[in-house]
Amino acid sequence: MRKIGFIGMGIMGKPMAMNLIAGGWEVVVWNRHPEKCKELLQKGARMAESPGALAAQCDVTFAMLADPNACLEVCFGAEGVLAGIGEGRGYVDMSTVDPHTSRRIGEAVAARGGRFLEAPVSGSRKPAEEGTLIIMAAGDRSLFDEVGPAFAKMGKMALYLGDVGKGAQMKLCVNLIMGDMMASFCEGLALASRVGLNLQEVLSVLDGGAMSNPMFRLKGASILAENFPVAFPLKHMQKDLRLALLLGDEVGKPLVTTAVVNELFKKAREKGLGDLDFSAIWQVVK
Amino acid sequence: MRKIGFIGMGIMGKPMAMNLIAGGWEVVVWNRHPEKCKELLQKGARMAESPGALAAQCDVTFAMLADPNACLEVCFGAEGVLAGIGEGRGYVDMSTVDPHTSRRIGEAVAARGGRFLEAPVSGSRKPAEEGTLIIMAAGDRSLFDEVGPAFAKMGKMALYLGDVGKGAQMKLCVNLIMGDMMASFCEGLALASRVGLNLQEVLSVLDGGAMSNPMFRLKGASILAENFPVAFPLKHMQKDLRLALLLGDEVGKPLVTTAVVNELFKKAREKGLGDLDFSAIWQVVK
Amino acid sequence: MRKIGFIGMGIMGKPMAMNLIAGGWEVVVWNRHPEKCKELLQKGARMAESPGALAAQCDVTFAMLADPNACLEVCFGAEGVLAGIGEGRGYVDMSTVDPHTSRRIGEAVAARGGRFLEAPVSGSRKPAEEGTLIIMAAGDRSLFDEVGPAFAKMGKMALYLGDVGKGAQMKLCVNLIMGDMMASFCEGLALASRVGLNLQEVLSVLDGGAMSNPMFRLKGASILAENFPVAFPLKHMQKDLRLALLLGDEVGKPLVTTAVVNELFKKAREKGLGDLDFSAIWQVVK
Amino acid sequence: MRKIGFIGMGIMGKPMAMNLIAGGWEVVVWNRHPEKCKELLQKGARMAESPGALAAQCDVTFAMLADPNACLEVCFGAEGVLAGIGEGRGYVDMSTVDPHTSRRIGEAVAARGGRFLEAPVSGSRKPAEEGTLIIMAAGDRSLFDEVGPAFAKMGKMALYLGDVGKGAQMKLCVNLIMGDMMASFCEGLALASRVGLNLQEVLSVLDGGAMSNPMFRLKGASILAENFPVAFPLKHMQKDLRLALLLGDEVGKPLVTTAVVNELFKKAREKGLGDLDFSAIWQVVK
Repeated sequence: MRKIGFIGMGIMGKPMAMNLIAGGWEVVVWNRHPEKCKELLQKGARMAESPGALAAQCDVTFAMLADPNACLEVCFGAEGVLAGIGEGRGYVDMSTVDPHTSRRIGEAVAARGGRFLEAPVSGSRKPAEEGTLIIMAAGDRSLFDEVGPAFAKMGKMALYLGDVGKGAQMKLCVNLIMGDMMASFCEGLALASRVGLNLQEVLSVLDGGAMSNPMFRLKGASILAENFPVAFPLKHMQKDLRLALLLGDEVGKPLVTTAVVNELFKKAREKGLGDLDFSAIWQVVK
Repeated sequence: MRKIGFIGMGIMGKPMAMNLIAGGWEVVVWNRHPEKCKELLQKGARMAESPGALAAQCDVTFAMLADPNACLEVCFGAEGVLAGIGEGRGYVDMSTVDPHTSRRIGEAVAARGGRFLEAPVSGSRKPAEEGTLIIMAAGDRSLFDEVGPAFAKMGKMALYLGDVGKGAQMKLCVNLIMGDMMASFCEGLALASRVGLNLQEVLSVLDGGAMSNPMFRLKGASILAENFPVAFPLKHMQKDLRLALLLGDEVGKPLVTTAVVNELFKKAREKGLGDLDFSAIWQVVK
Repeated sequence: MRKIGFIGMGIMGKPMAMNLIAGGWEVVVWNRHPEKCKELLQKGARMAESPGALAAQCDVTFAMLADPNACLEVCFGAEGVLAGIGEGRGYVDMSTVDPHTSRRIGEAVAARGGRFLEAPVSGSRKPAEEGTLIIMAAGDRSLFDEVGPAFAKMGKMALYLGDVGKGAQMKLCVNLIMGDMMASFCEGLALASRVGLNLQEVLSVLDGGAMSNPMFRLKGASILAENFPVAFPLKHMQKDLRLALLLGDEVGKPLVTTAVVNELFKKAREKGLGDLDFSAIWQVVK
Repeated sequence: MRKIGFIGMGIMGKPMAMNLIAGGWEVVVWNRHPEKCKELLQKGARMAESPGALAAQCDVTFAMLADPNACLEVCFGAEGVLAGIGEGRGYVDMSTVDPHTSRRIGEAVAARGGRFLEAPVSGSRKPAEEGTLIIMAAGDRSLFDEVGPAFAKMGKMALYLGDVGKGAQMKLCVNLIMGDMMASFCEGLALASRVGLNLQEVLSVLDGGAMSNPMFRLKGASILAENFPVAFPLKHMQKDLRLALLLGDEVGKPLVTTAVVNELFKKAREKGLGDLDFSAIWQVVK
């Protein structure tokens, strides 16, 4: 792998592509709004005219896009990745999508002779910049091995999980825990607040013990300030809880805590909090 | 404060008293089974004949006992602390009890002219040995200030929370979060296991991200091994969840996630898991 | 049994005593506010000066009082039932109390040589007037047999359930179902309302099928009118759910649906709906 | 409307068609297995060769089929209803399907110039035989008015609910209540059983009061016998709860009791009880 394509210059994609340039690869970029590529061109990247043109000239093409629809468009659209992918080339979609979307893209790529990996990540803007993402990859094993050095530049850990779909499943399990843990945190703080404890002191006690974690530190401060700058939108968390519950339904696994937490997040959406950070669940629990 | 009493030489009390001896104070100890005091006597402590005799000769007496009944017996029993406490002396009960027991002891001590603090701790054996407990104190403020240097030897943080009862309330809020968080953790792992993900990899992903915490690391290993050496018994966690819910009921605060988690812990007790570690909730969630 | 005492001339007690007079017994009454006895005196009852004086002259004394405190006062107070009860006399407390209160009264009566039954009822004002209550009796079997004819005048069914405490337990189980069923009803109506169905039509469909029951008919109308005249106060229902859950906790029986419904009723109390009818849970579910 | 078609001679469809014959209409029938039509032919019905042939000769065609797939096949398949439906003819699908299937069929019928009603029913075998079903119709209003006399023979109540989809929504709301109510019933019985009450007596108390309903009578007996002859399969109830929750999710209506009950039904499915009657939820609650 000498020449790498990167599609999607958003909050996540741009710093990820930067890290690849810094790693010494020849990088070709594409973004729906070309002006977002400027900084990368200054660092030595070149720009392709379309996802298809990009895929046709690169050994491996990475993508980091907003949602399943964007992924489908970039892949199946006119001048999409499929138009350029060919025998032996690789496509690595690092966006967060559902397993069904992922499988659909993977099958189309394979049908053209290409190789596919889904590779959603854990971590947001800062880990993307610092190259400390956690990468949950699934799909073509030879491609995973081949892109190892690139993953090593973008993340601090890259796991190979098996068939396409396993990456999305891993992400749902992790987000389920994140949603439930946030509701748990808020219920404890809500009780503390109601009995008149100082919430800053509750946070200190939590931070001094075995439950101490960066999320409680970061979101605890948001909650005390009742200010919820969006890092992960509440409506997306509720969607992930719904998908996790449906996955549980498919495989016959009851998840009663999660079911209740999902209803709390629905309640928050009902109250118009869907576009705030998911820690705004505090507003319905407090 | 020159002369310190310490009652209760259990898993927690013994290392705490050791740290006080190491701090240079003159320490007098008492334990129901005197042989447990041996190691402390070798380090220079002296032994009293009864809690009352101990309290009568010390400026401040600390206690670390198993449960509310032990605390009541040591305080109100024949030759109990009350028999020795007097004008200006201090009594600091660091055991975990309910607010009602705590208030009853505090009032009796005050009636004899003594000063009282409840001071439950967060942290178990290891932090006790290392002097890194978190101390949640409530009661007499002058006594809190006076015992500051002793708290500093036993813990890494000591909070003064207000009137007697606030310490117990803080502990319930913290344990509520711990119980709910454990159930959340287990539901995510259970779904992951059912869809065929490798649980060790799920733990790695969690540990690499914003939710990373010592409890997931420690208990995650227990869960994968399905071996639950008791650090905090499941039945005690269920009791704390019940008390937290009743506290919520008293102050009119609904806690729906906690209510469901409490039923899961009851289910575990119903299955005979009450004496295992609270992470054995895994057995009913998986 | 020729001479019957009746203590408590409230909404329930008065019509119950009336039915006993109509049954041909000699009835002696007592009420904290004597003026409430007037109507019964006109029908031929006599009035006693105190619960004790009443119990001393009657073969069996019935009571129908507001709450555990009233029951304890009438029994243990100065000139209370205990002062008059004696060898072989009977005391039948038909109030709704917890098992502990019931057992305490039963033991005191037995210690004086008397016989005791707890006998809470299912049904409110109208069944009391019409003599169609359901009587859940527990305690002294010979007394149960002896008062059979009196129960037959007051109710349409009288069950003997065993030791004192069983009557209260039966009532908690029945009220648990009632509370959960009301929440179930409201959730179905809430979804129907949100999708734009006509709630009157939903009620018609329910009433035409296997779930058809008087409670849905009566409370359905309240809910549609959003008018909740109090028949059974919401705060009492929440208290019964709490007691049922604690009973489940004691005997190791998890009840997860009930746990969630209890939190909904707490939510309603938090919103200030505690003194309305328990069907006002609609206000938090809708 | 003189000539009526009826497709589907199952447990429900056969007695419904019988009632139409008894009502004096000329009835044409069709069933995938023609031998099931025998009894109806003896009563004077005629048999068509295909759904399409049937629809082509009848003013209105009714269908009562097992599930959405059967409905789609009968409508869209070769020689299906669509092949015969034409200008002004009516099609009334009384099967229970989801709103999306219903709308798809309705649109196809309308595109051929036909008129469509969805008309799921409440009630099972016995009400079908006795002509006492409850019919929840939605779609073409003129068709609803026209088939009124036929509905009157098959049911005791027929509601017109509006656009296609409303019938299915009504059914989901009703089944949500039924599922939740069954779980409520079982939790009360489970607690009663655990504390040693006689369940037959609990049923008697319930049946004597405001909650008295045919479902508790019928299913209460099943539960006591722990014998669950299938009237409505548990897995179908769980599916309806899932659909009701997803409907709530779509319209932003949290339903926390239902969410928990759905998990109980999933638990029952996990235990292999899916093909038993839905009252077998008892096995996981008890």
